[in-house]
Amino acid sequence: MNTTATLSRIFAGIQPELDQVDALFQERATSGLAILNSASMHALASPGKRLRTALTLLAGKLNHYDFGKLLQLSVAFEMVHLATLIHDDIIDEAATRRGNPTVNALWGDKIAILLGDYYLAKTSGLIAEIENPRIDHLFADTVATVCEGTIMEMMTSGRADLTVETYFEKIKNKTACLIAACSKGGAILSDATDEQVEFLHSYGLNLGIAFQIIDDILDYTEDQSTIGKPAGNDLRQGMVTLPLIFALQEASQNGHQQQVQALLNSDEHNEKDILEVVDWVTHGYGVDLSLQEAHNYANKAREALYHFPASSDRDVLDELIDFVISRRR
Amino acid sequence: MNTTATLSRIFAGIQPELDQVDALFQERATSGLAILNSASMHALASPGKRLRTALTLLAGKLNHYDFGKLLQLSVAFEMVHLATLIHDDIIDEAATRRGNPTVNALWGDKIAILLGDYYLAKTSGLIAEIENPRIDHLFADTVATVCEGTIMEMMTSGRADLTVETYFEKIKNKTACLIAACSKGGAILSDATDEQVEFLHSYGLNLGIAFQIIDDILDYTEDQSTIGKPAGNDLRQGMVTLPLIFALQEASQNGHQQQVQALLNSDEHNEKDILEVVDWVTHGYGVDLSLQEAHNYANKAREALYHFPASSDRDVLDELIDFVISRRR
Repeated sequence: MNTTATLSRIFAGIQPELDQVDALFQERATSGLAILNSASMHALASPGKRLRTALTLLAGKLNHYDFGKLLQLSVAFEMVHLATLIHDDIIDEAATRRGNPTVNALWGDKIAILLGDYYLAKTSGLIAEIENPRIDHLFADTVATVCEGTIMEMMTSGRADLTVETYFEKIKNKTACLIAACSKGGAILSDATDEQVEFLHSYGLNLGIAFQIIDDILDYTEDQSTIGKPAGNDLRQGMVTLPLIFALQEASQNGHQQQVQALLNSDEHNEKDILEVVDWVTHGYGVDLSLQEAHNYANKAREALYHFPASSDRDVLDELIDFVISRRR
Repeated sequence: MNTTATLSRIFAGIQPELDQVDALFQERATSGLAILNSASMHALASPGKRLRTALTLLAGKLNHYDFGKLLQLSVAFEMVHLATLIHDDIIDEAATRRGNPTVNALWGDKIAILLGDYYLAKTSGLIAEIENPRIDHLFADTVATVCEGTIMEMMTSGRADLTVETYFEKIKNKTACLIAACSKGGAILSDATDEQVEFLHSYGLNLGIAFQIIDDILDYTEDQSTIGKPAGNDLRQGMVTLPLIFALQEASQNGHQQQVQALLNSDEHNEKDILEVVDWVTHGYGVDLSLQEAHNYANKAREALYHFPASSDRDVLDELIDFVISRRR
């Protein structure tokens, strides 16, 4: 079963709400300018965008469920995610995302910059409508942190000596922070106690970290037929991720690190060298140790979740942890 | 007297407040990431950034002056302006702004995209602190409109058949909208009546339109020694502005329009052709008619202002109109 089908099954119970989020998203993402609409429609076609929506809604449902406000917040977080994807694709010079051409590939970097900005502005509008000061701050802090994470990723790109600590700081800021904001925001809007808000923040943060580690593992273990790009793509882009960091720690460090650093420094990638490193990371302890870390964070997410009484909504959030760990792309 | 010196003289009465805005701006524009600080410091050195600050403060002073809130709003509007400048410079592929290297020229497009995003996020944080729903909406609507204006500018770039109506829609959205938001926002935060808020919005909007028309005139009439770039720079960039539109209307349209369109279509600019069009726009009615339009909008700004009783603060806003009209760059 592919990712989209699996998520649809997990989210079957909140399908009507998810459809309403989609409808509001489409309404808000369009404008009087034809080019914007065209680019928005394209971006909307991207799969996998329901994770953040579902988290926001489900975190609310664990408490006092106010669908009107959660609807606006869900759309806001999907939209800010979309804005960051559009700008990320410019920065990564990506021509495709999940097999579809990126906004920058279709319309150029300039339109892509403005489209990302426009979505950030539209997100601010949605946040303003919610009229909740804690949500205002959560949104602003989250976007600033995501930017810092992305800058950190750029600054550490191409460095074979990236530490485990810096890797975790980077993925917390760049990826997990927004996922945590979804579950935290859902809780804030549902009159959860401060303690419950913190538990749901912890759930989202740890789930998000596990999500990114798995993403980084899949980059080594899955091939073109599954994910639309060859294994080792992060390495090709100069991104040093957890499986490689662990593999370097395992190996007689200096020799391997120099080999990897030489590969990262070279402009002309030798595919044979890349695939050699991929093979070496995949079949050594790099992937195993990373998977172990992902499980650790998944357990922390589950621990936070189990502070809430059992319910069908808690079950869905629980299932989501298993999905994040066991997913293919 | 140069622009900075003239503005300093006009704003002498609010100098201590302006200094406090600068201090808060510097505090908020920095972060734990060294590259961000370095880029921020660079952007802060840009002159002319006090116009928006002063407008926000003075609009507040016409009513019930609450400096604490106005301080945050002033910083927010300067910061959102800075974010748009940074992204604009990427889009225009500009290497310098007012004689200084741009952020994209110094650190590359990628850092510049992220720095702009970071400032937008920081602005959201400042707006959140103000905790005023009308300001939340004003901010979100303003940023969305500025993005739409910039996209419109891109889409109409290189078109010799740009109409006067489209030109005005573009400059209202891209430039005047933010200036209007400053004076309107200052009024909102100072418990002005709805009518007073609208008068100050009208003042800012019309001042902003006059400001941009004059900017577009100066591009034809001032030379490298004054503005750090040769006359006709907009034309070189494919930007069709009011002086050219009027000049084309004046001339036996078809012949000239085709000449200009051919010039805009050509990748390799022939400096002789450019300077010929500059000369023709400058010495025909193009500049005169544009100046007349700028005066019309200046008068509308003054009309809106004169609904407020005479005061030294109103005098400053009045003087600002004259400055905008008579300024060199």
